[in-house]
Amino acid sequence: MSLNPVDDALCERLRARLPEAAFRDPAAYLSEPRGTWRGQAGLVVAPANTEEVAEAIRVAGEARVGVVPYGGGTGLVGGQLLQDGPAPLVLSLERMRAVREVLPRENVIVAEAGAVLSDVQAAAQEAERLFPLSLGSQGSARIGGLLATNAGGANVLRYGNARDLVLGLEAVLPDGQIWHGLRRLRKDNTGYDLRHLLVGAEGTLGIITAAALRLFPRPAREGAAMIVVPGPDTALDLLGLAQDMMAGGISAFELISGVGLKFLREMGFDVRQPFDEAPEWCVLIDLGLPAGQDPDAVLEELFADAFERDLALDGVIAQSGAQRQDFWTLRDTIPEANREIGAIASHDISLPLGEVPRFLDAAGPAVEALGPFRINVFGHLGDGNLHYNIFPPKGEKRDAYRPRAAEISRVIHDLVQSHEGSFSAEHGVGRLKVDDLERYGDPAKLDAMRRIKAALDPLGIMNPGAMLRNA
Amino acid sequence: MSLNPVDDALCERLRARLPEAAFRDPAAYLSEPRGTWRGQAGLVVAPANTEEVAEAIRVAGEARVGVVPYGGGTGLVGGQLLQDGPAPLVLSLERMRAVREVLPRENVIVAEAGAVLSDVQAAAQEAERLFPLSLGSQGSARIGGLLATNAGGANVLRYGNARDLVLGLEAVLPDGQIWHGLRRLRKDNTGYDLRHLLVGAEGTLGIITAAALRLFPRPAREGAAMIVVPGPDTALDLLGLAQDMMAGGISAFELISGVGLKFLREMGFDVRQPFDEAPEWCVLIDLGLPAGQDPDAVLEELFADAFERDLALDGVIAQSGAQRQDFWTLRDTIPEANREIGAIASHDISLPLGEVPRFLDAAGPAVEALGPFRINVFGHLGDGNLHYNIFPPKGEKRDAYRPRAAEISRVIHDLVQSHEGSFSAEHGVGRLKVDDLERYGDPAKLDAMRRIKAALDPLGIMNPGAMLRNA
Repeated sequence: MSLNPVDDALCERLRARLPEAAFRDPAAYLSEPRGTWRGQAGLVVAPANTEEVAEAIRVAGEARVGVVPYGGGTGLVGGQLLQDGPAPLVLSLERMRAVREVLPRENVIVAEAGAVLSDVQAAAQEAERLFPLSLGSQGSARIGGLLATNAGGANVLRYGNARDLVLGLEAVLPDGQIWHGLRRLRKDNTGYDLRHLLVGAEGTLGIITAAALRLFPRPAREGAAMIVVPGPDTALDLLGLAQDMMAGGISAFELISGVGLKFLREMGFDVRQPFDEAPEWCVLIDLGLPAGQDPDAVLEELFADAFERDLALDGVIAQSGAQRQDFWTLRDTIPEANREIGAIASHDISLPLGEVPRFLDAAGPAVEALGPFRINVFGHLGDGNLHYNIFPPKGEKRDAYRPRAAEISRVIHDLVQSHEGSFSAEHGVGRLKVDDLERYGDPAKLDAMRRIKAALDPLGIMNPGAMLRNA
Repeated sequence: MSLNPVDDALCERLRARLPEAAFRDPAAYLSEPRGTWRGQAGLVVAPANTEEVAEAIRVAGEARVGVVPYGGGTGLVGGQLLQDGPAPLVLSLERMRAVREVLPRENVIVAEAGAVLSDVQAAAQEAERLFPLSLGSQGSARIGGLLATNAGGANVLRYGNARDLVLGLEAVLPDGQIWHGLRRLRKDNTGYDLRHLLVGAEGTLGIITAAALRLFPRPAREGAAMIVVPGPDTALDLLGLAQDMMAGGISAFELISGVGLKFLREMGFDVRQPFDEAPEWCVLIDLGLPAGQDPDAVLEELFADAFERDLALDGVIAQSGAQRQDFWTLRDTIPEANREIGAIASHDISLPLGEVPRFLDAAGPAVEALGPFRINVFGHLGDGNLHYNIFPPKGEKRDAYRPRAAEISRVIHDLVQSHEGSFSAEHGVGRLKVDDLERYGDPAKLDAMRRIKAALDPLGIMNPGAMLRNA
């Protein structure tokens, strides 16, 4: 069943049926952060409310026109833009940005899909609560897109992925029905969990229009340390030791390689490095504790214990909030340095925790066998999530090596698969990784996915070509 | 599309295709804990492995015979037995009870569907880890059923529902395909979340055969207190205060009414009651803290603070592990006292936390208007989950009032609905609450559920009539 492009008749009908909706200049909706592709849009509509979203979907369905939902546009796998095929209707949630309710007593916030993550964080903070989802693009990324892609970030270790923060959803299904599922319940066993089906479906099964989200008490005391470890294997032991000591108090546990620290120096980034010599491996551990506990004392005890067990070679405990911030700036600047140097191929992979060291031991030589590449691996070790990025030799540009990107990624993803890992930990499938999903996905699961897609979206209008190839 | 009953030909074919499977005497699989219904079974098969489960499903599909998956048989909503219609094949997972792997470093345990919960808890403990799912029937309930029903229990506040403990699943889908999804990943965004679709689907979309489950560090120090509160509203404030003080350290927060305490005395249960006079409302708060923290000191501080703010009227902090156990025995004996007295109608409801006091304020008079009933409400207040049970006047038997059960439940469930709550918090829908789901469920969600069911199980063989009425 093929789709039609947006044509003049559809434009007219949409403008007539949605007189209050806004229509936007498509130009701003066609690029993506890595600059790899350009999308196309027959028309961009920005509804003001859920009923308008539903009406837009109904009109698109009648005309058999594809709909590409658009949040903050920060996705890294092309889920938010359609490069070819019939020109789609782009549906932007940007005007539905209200925080509908903040319920500190319930630890709940209800936000519309177009609310920007940093605004939701701020609304929670105003109510003395924490909305823990946190990632680089939080100043632009919107709740709808963050949920549709089940965003991850730095605090998954403690608070879970985006899906784990969702209590209820309101959504427009592909036939234009509105699902009123904005429940604020902690336990609710009344039927199939549509919530978890729509979260992570990347807009292919409907459009999330609002969500009831979990809030948490704000940690009263925060602290951080950077600890030099002999290697990723001991980093995992250090994590285990820290978890035994303070259970849920660990907010993040990030692995940083010496290559990353050297990249910062190489590109002249003005960030404070805690160690004179870039150590081969270090971790950034971040704590958030209740009022009665002293993070510095806990970190000192952890470091002493770790040092004794040969799990730590050196370390710096942040002496102030400013120094803790310096650690995070350093961590968060690594992706910028990566961008400036220019990766030949980037990989957002995850592994069972115990497989991380084995994977790294195997992947280094496998990449070396391909050529004189530099590897910068960093990421959320506590979640087994590594950003495993491949760069040209020092002084060379990536352009000469770009033709080899597919070959490199194939070697790395094959290795990930053999270690029971995932080729997409937090970025999703989008349009970039449809082939990977077909190659590495479980056949029974893929078959079930296609059946579900056909059942809920028989016309195939919702984000066509994302995640699943068009039927 | 109607199903066929198990007949001799099917029995022969199954025995021929599954020579190693065990066939059981049906008698043991036809009753349920509350003794309300009896099921039927044309044949009971107990496969030894996943491939045998798949083969049984394929044979049933060829013959268009219904399959009722059977775990520990402890469900309270009739999901595990089929009262009428063509005699089904009952598929018991009891022989697949292996703990396949314990990975303490990863905080993961891999267990087969037939593993009994207490055995999984014990395997975790042996590895110095905690598998936190905990409920009354843990000595009989099996992992497969616990996941298929998304079981709750006392520790949801801290560790989430059963679904939140699942990293990966292995399952047989309705067409007999095996989904090899036993992943041990903390982040994995590669397609629709089948895991969360099968969890809570009560066997209507396939049979879970094994699961990779999350483990946690065991709290080094435990403590508990029973605190008398002015009412449910202040109990919520007390919970908020406790969460601000110790964040994730609270393992459970249970509401107990004076009626429950009096029931224990009335029925002569030999349990230690911490208060001479049964207070109208009290809470049981349970803590699990890391080694460096003293739960008694924390509880004393909490109590002093609560007392000052008029959130606590009286309280007892457990002075020993034995006294803590006494508190829990008291809590866990209330359902037994309920059973001995005999409830006219039981309700497993949940509410947004902030609605709990308002619901209780409204429900008391609503029940009173129906007749001279006694209400025993208790439950997992931290999750907004109440067991709201209705009893005959003192000295009377429930039998005379049983004809009014439906009327009573209707009043309570209507009220729950008007307070944005759920008519099934943790027990599920099964066959008992199909009508409720149709009455109270969101129409768009119900429609999506039916489409998903038809897409994944077009023959309708999987647990027919559970959750959704037969098509």
